[in-house]
Amino acid sequence: MGSIPLQAQSSTFVNTLMPQPAHLTVGSGSLALGTQFTACEDKFHDGRLDRAVSRFLVRLKNETGLQIATAAGNCSATLTISVDGAGEAIQSDDENETYSLEVTPNGLHLHAATVVGAIHGLATVYQLVQASGSGWELPAVTIDDAPRFRWRGLMIDSSRHFVPIDVIYRTLDGMAAVKMNVFHWHLSDDQGFRIESKVFPKLQELGSDGDYYTQDQVRSVIAYARDRGIRVVPEFDIPGHAMSWLVGYPDLASGVGTDGKGNHQGPYAISREMGIFDPVLDPTRESTYQFLDKFLSEMTALFPDPYFHIGGDENNGVQWKNNPRIQEFMKSHDLKDTAALQTYFNQKLLPILKKNNKKMIGWDEIFTPTLPKDAIIQSWRGFDSLAASAKAGNGGILSAGYYLDQIQSAEEHYKVDPIPAGSDLTPEQASRILGGEAAMWAEHLSPRSIDSRIWPRAAVVAERLWSPQSVSNVDDMYRRLWVESVRLEDFGLLHLAAEDIGLRKLAAPEITTPDQIAPLRVFADVLQPVSFSQRYQLQHTTQLTPLDHLIDAVRPDPPSRHEVEAAVAEYLKNPSADSPAHAQLTAWFQQWVKTAPQLAPLMKAPLLQEAAPKAEQFGQLGQIGLDALKYLDAKQAAPAGWKDQAQALLKGANEPIGMVRFTVLEPLKQLVASVQ
Amino acid sequence: MGSIPLQAQSSTFVNTLMPQPAHLTVGSGSLALGTQFTACEDKFHDGRLDRAVSRFLVRLKNETGLQIATAAGNCSATLTISVDGAGEAIQSDDENETYSLEVTPNGLHLHAATVVGAIHGLATVYQLVQASGSGWELPAVTIDDAPRFRWRGLMIDSSRHFVPIDVIYRTLDGMAAVKMNVFHWHLSDDQGFRIESKVFPKLQELGSDGDYYTQDQVRSVIAYARDRGIRVVPEFDIPGHAMSWLVGYPDLASGVGTDGKGNHQGPYAISREMGIFDPVLDPTRESTYQFLDKFLSEMTALFPDPYFHIGGDENNGVQWKNNPRIQEFMKSHDLKDTAALQTYFNQKLLPILKKNNKKMIGWDEIFTPTLPKDAIIQSWRGFDSLAASAKAGNGGILSAGYYLDQIQSAEEHYKVDPIPAGSDLTPEQASRILGGEAAMWAEHLSPRSIDSRIWPRAAVVAERLWSPQSVSNVDDMYRRLWVESVRLEDFGLLHLAAEDIGLRKLAAPEITTPDQIAPLRVFADVLQPVSFSQRYQLQHTTQLTPLDHLIDAVRPDPPSRHEVEAAVAEYLKNPSADSPAHAQLTAWFQQWVKTAPQLAPLMKAPLLQEAAPKAEQFGQLGQIGLDALKYLDAKQAAPAGWKDQAQALLKGANEPIGMVRFTVLEPLKQLVASVQ
Repeated sequence: MGSIPLQAQSSTFVNTLMPQPAHLTVGSGSLALGTQFTACEDKFHDGRLDRAVSRFLVRLKNETGLQIATAAGNCSATLTISVDGAGEAIQSDDENETYSLEVTPNGLHLHAATVVGAIHGLATVYQLVQASGSGWELPAVTIDDAPRFRWRGLMIDSSRHFVPIDVIYRTLDGMAAVKMNVFHWHLSDDQGFRIESKVFPKLQELGSDGDYYTQDQVRSVIAYARDRGIRVVPEFDIPGHAMSWLVGYPDLASGVGTDGKGNHQGPYAISREMGIFDPVLDPTRESTYQFLDKFLSEMTALFPDPYFHIGGDENNGVQWKNNPRIQEFMKSHDLKDTAALQTYFNQKLLPILKKNNKKMIGWDEIFTPTLPKDAIIQSWRGFDSLAASAKAGNGGILSAGYYLDQIQSAEEHYKVDPIPAGSDLTPEQASRILGGEAAMWAEHLSPRSIDSRIWPRAAVVAERLWSPQSVSNVDDMYRRLWVESVRLEDFGLLHLAAEDIGLRKLAAPEITTPDQIAPLRVFADVLQPVSFSQRYQLQHTTQLTPLDHLIDAVRPDPPSRHEVEAAVAEYLKNPSADSPAHAQLTAWFQQWVKTAPQLAPLMKAPLLQEAAPKAEQFGQLGQIGLDALKYLDAKQAAPAGWKDQAQALLKGANEPIGMVRFTVLEPLKQLVASVQ
Repeated sequence: MGSIPLQAQSSTFVNTLMPQPAHLTVGSGSLALGTQFTACEDKFHDGRLDRAVSRFLVRLKNETGLQIATAAGNCSATLTISVDGAGEAIQSDDENETYSLEVTPNGLHLHAATVVGAIHGLATVYQLVQASGSGWELPAVTIDDAPRFRWRGLMIDSSRHFVPIDVIYRTLDGMAAVKMNVFHWHLSDDQGFRIESKVFPKLQELGSDGDYYTQDQVRSVIAYARDRGIRVVPEFDIPGHAMSWLVGYPDLASGVGTDGKGNHQGPYAISREMGIFDPVLDPTRESTYQFLDKFLSEMTALFPDPYFHIGGDENNGVQWKNNPRIQEFMKSHDLKDTAALQTYFNQKLLPILKKNNKKMIGWDEIFTPTLPKDAIIQSWRGFDSLAASAKAGNGGILSAGYYLDQIQSAEEHYKVDPIPAGSDLTPEQASRILGGEAAMWAEHLSPRSIDSRIWPRAAVVAERLWSPQSVSNVDDMYRRLWVESVRLEDFGLLHLAAEDIGLRKLAAPEITTPDQIAPLRVFADVLQPVSFSQRYQLQHTTQLTPLDHLIDAVRPDPPSRHEVEAAVAEYLKNPSADSPAHAQLTAWFQQWVKTAPQLAPLMKAPLLQEAAPKAEQFGQLGQIGLDALKYLDAKQAAPAGWKDQAQALLKGANEPIGMVRFTVLEPLKQLVASVQ
C-alpha cells in the first residue's frame, strides 16, 4: 500500500475517476457490494443531504441491479457520511468543497465540512463502482480531495436558440457528475430574451417568440442546481447584444430615431442573423438607468447568487458614434471614445448591483482600471487578457480555449490551463484566477444536438479545473472519458443516443426498418462536425435555418480520432503483421472498405446527398490503410505512384463535404508517410 | 385516376399513412415542397389552431431542411386550412373529428368542421411528405377521413412506477401523431397515489414516496393534450387497488381494526408487492362517502373531461367478509355478496359524480343491471363482457387484447377488433361500443423502457380504432409501422434510442469506448422481452426491483420477427439460391454466426451474464439457418440426425434465458421442417 501516481492501477483498482482527485492512495482489497448495502448520516444532515444520498443510492441500485434501500438509515451502515454542517446558505465561490473518503473491505467513510463537499464525495463513490466477476465492488482507496479552482462553470446560451427546460435539468445532472459548480445562464442576446419579467413583460412577450423561462421555472432550476452543489449565475448581456430588449422597449436604444435626436426609435425586431449588430442600449439617458434599476432589482431578487453577469462584450459603438446627442454627451462628460462611454455605463450599473448585494461579472470588455476590485472578468480573449485584470487586482475566469462550439478535441481543451505553466503571475495574482467556464454558444444548437456538443468534452474541462495541474496524461484522460461518457447517459443525457436518432431521420427515405442504419453508424463513427465558424461560412446560418443535417447528428471528437491515432502510433513503433495494433487497424480498415458500398443507397436520401462524396472517400481511406499496412508489414516499397496517389486522396478527404470532416486523417497520413 | 385499394401505390405515391384514412383517392403528380411553402387559415382560427399549424410547419421545416415560415400567413398560400369552428369547449367523445384533404400539384386544401379535425388533418399531411430525388413532395391525393371509433385511448399507469412528466408530454405527442384522442391516466393504485390533493394532502404526502404530479402540472398536461385533440380521463381506482390512500387515511379501510369493529385501522404502507390485496375502502360508513364527496369534487373540478374513471376492478372482498360489522351491514341492506356491496358503493358514488357533471367509467366489475345507462365499461375481460353491457344499454371500450405489457406482437394487437366480424350485436348495440384503449401497466416500467413498451405498437391499436375494419393487411401494416416508428422519434420519443442506452450501460464493464456495442445491437435486434407475467414468475419483481436487465433494454416485437418470417415465407415458395429472399436470409444468418463469438467477451458484464447462453444459441441459430438453406437450395436431404439436432436446438432456444426470448424461431422451425 502506498501513495501511487494517479494513473497507475493496482491489480484490483481500475481508476476511472473523472475528475481525478487531488490525493488518492490505493489500499488492499475491495468492498463487495450486496443488497445489504446501507448508508447513514452520522453527524449533520438536512433535506439537501438526504436527497443527495437518496439519488446516489437509486443510481447505485440501478447500476448494479442490487435491490438496496434507497434512503439513509440507522448507523452501523456500509457507507457512513459525516458532514460537519450545511455550508453556505447561498453557495458562493467561497464554499468549502473538500471531502475525504476511505474505502476498506469493511465499509466506506465519507467526511466533508459541508453538504456540497459530501455531494462531490458521493459523485466520486459512484465513479468508483466497478464490476468484479458476476458482482460489483468498491476498491479500497483513501481519497483526500479538493478542487484546484473554485469556479468550474458551464455557460449555456439560451438566446440564439432556446434550450428547453428538460435539457437544462439533465445538463445540471451531468455537471454534478463531474463536480462542476457554476451554471452560467446566458439569458438574453440579440436573438431572444428568454426569461419572464413581471416588471417589463414586453421583454419576453415580444422578444422571445414565446420561448422563455417562467420565473417559477427559474426558481425550480435554481433549487435543483443547489441540490447538486451548483450555483446559477444569470447573464443579461448589455449594452450590446440586446436587440431583443428593443422589440418591446425601443426607447432604450441609441439610434437617432425619426427626429434625429433619438426619439421615436425603432421599430426593432428579434435578430434572426448571427453576429454583432449596431443597436445597443442608450447609456446617456436617465430613463435607461431607471429601467435597468427596476429590471435588475427584479432579477437580482430572483437569482440568489452573489454574482450577476452583465455581459458587456462586442459593442461596436456604431449607434453611439452616429447619434449627435450621444456624441454631445460624450464631449460634455469628457468621454474620449465609445469604450469610455461603456465604462461610464458600467459605472452606473455598479450602484444598482451593489444595493442589491451583487458583485459584477462581465466579459473582457468591462475591464478598466476603475472597475471595483470585487468585479470579475470572464475572458473570451485568453490568458493575457485575464492576467492583465488579475495584475490590476480583479478576479477572473477563463473561457478562451473552452468554447465547445469550436468543435475542438477533448485533448485540445484539456491542454488549456487557466494558469499556464510559466506564467509570470505572482502567487497573489494567480490566486485571483478563480477558474474557468466551458462555453456553449447556441448559433447551431437544437435540443437534439446540444448534448453531444457539451458532453463528454465538458467533463475534460471539469477535470482541468478540479484536478491538480500535473494530471495531464492525454491517453489516460481519453481512457477515462469514454467510461464517463457512458456513465453520463445514466443522468439522462442523450449525447450518444441522439446520433442514432439523427441518422435514422436522415436515412428515413431510404430505409425500410429502423435497424437498417448500421452502415451509417460505422460511417458516423469517423465523422465530426466542422466548427461553428466553418459552418457559418459554408451555410450562412440564421436562427431560422433548420438544424437537421448530418453535421447535426454526428458527434465532436468521437472515440475514433484518438483510438486510430493511438493504434497507428503503437503500430509504427515496430511495424509487424503480428501486433495487436495491426489486427485492430486491419479490422477497422476492412470494415470501412466493406461499409462504403452499403452506404451508397442510403446517401440518396435528400439530406444525405450533400455528404455522399464523403461516403466514397470513406472506402478509399480504408483501402489506403490496408495498402499501407501491407507495405509496412513487408518492409517493402510501395509501387510507383501509390504514395502520391494516397497523399492526394488524403488531401482531398481533408476538405469538409456536407459540413462534416473525417477524424482519422492524421494517423492515416502518418501511415502513408512511413511507407518507403 | 380513381379510387383504389388503400394498400396500392401509384408510381409516385408511397402510402405510409398510419392510421389509414377512411377514403383515399390518388391523383396525378405531386406538389413539390420548397422554401416558399406557406400556410393560411381562411375561415375560423383560434390560438389552438394557430399553435397546431405552427407545430406542423416547424416539423415540416425540420424534416425537409427547407427554411419555411413557421406561422400561418396571408392567404393565397400553399396550404389553405378551412375550419368551420372551434368545436366543443370541452372535447368529448361527441367531437366532430372528420377532415378532408385535397393535394394537387398546385397546393393543398384542408377542410375540417372543428379544430380537432384540422389537427388530425395536419397529422396526415405530415405523414404524406415523401422524398423525391434531392427534394421533397406531397403526392396528389384526395382524402375524406373520419374515425371508425370515437374513443381511441392509451392508458398509462403512473402508480406502480411513477412516470415523469416529460414522458407524459412526449407520449401525448406520439398519440397525436397517430390520431389517438383519449389519455387515460391511472393515477392511484396500491403502489402509489400520484396526484396532489389540496383537500387531503396526506394522500400524496404519505402515499407517493414524493413522486406525484402537482395540480399545476396536471393543468398543464390537460392544456397540452387539448392542443393536440386529446382528452384526459383520470382514473382513481376504488374501492380496491387503494392501499396507497390508506397510508394517510387509514380510517377509510375495511379491516377489523384493533377493536374488531373497524376502529383504529392500520397502519398501512404503500404496497411494494404487485397483485391484489385485501385492504379496500369501507363502503358501509358515511365517513367514507363524506371523504369521497370532498375528494371527488376537488378532482372533478381539476379534470374537465365529461367522464371520470373510478376503476372498480379486482376487489377480492376479503376485508368485507372478515369484518363482522360489514357483514352485519350487508345483511341489514339485503346485499347478498361482496359484489352486491360493491354495487352499493358505486351507486353511492353516482350522485357525487352527477352533481359534478361527470359520467362514470369503470372496469368490467362495475357493470350491473342497475348501472345508469350513461356509465360506460372498460373491458379487460374481453369482447363478451363488453357485449353484455352493450346489450344492456351501456357504452363500452375494449382493452382486452390491447395490453402492451403482455409483450405481444403488433400483429396480434392488430387482429383484435372491438366489434369482431360475426358478432351478434344489433347495429344499435354495436354503436355503444365506442372504441378501445391500449393499456400500459407499470409493474415493470422505467422512464427508460416505457417508450419502447408503448411505441410503435400503440400505433397499430390506433389504426385498428381509426381505420375501416377492412384495413387488415399485416404485411402492409408492418411496412408502414417501421416508417412510423422512425417518424415518432421526431416527437421526442426514445423507443429506439433507449435500447442503445441500455446496451451501453449493460456492457459498460466490458467495453472501452461507447461505440463497441455493435455486436450487442445485432444480438438485440432478434431479442424481445418476455411478457409481464413471465417476468413476474421468473423474478418475483416488486416496486423496488431494479429494472436494468437486458429485458429492460430490448424492444417488444422488433422488425426482425416479421422480416425473417416474411423472407422465409417468400423463400419457401420456391427455394432457390438465386432469389432475393435467399440472399437476405443468408446475409442475416452469416451475421449471426459471425457476431456470436464477438458477443462472448461482452456477456461477461455482471448484468449480461444471465443471458450469455442466449448469445451462444444466437450463433447456433445462424448455423441452422445456413445449413437449412444449403439443403433446400440443393433439394437434397440433410445428413442423418441433422434435423433432430436442429429441432432440439430450436426447442432449447425457445426457453427464455435472462428473461429474453428470440423473435426468429418460428420461421427457422419452418425452414428446418421444410428440409427433407
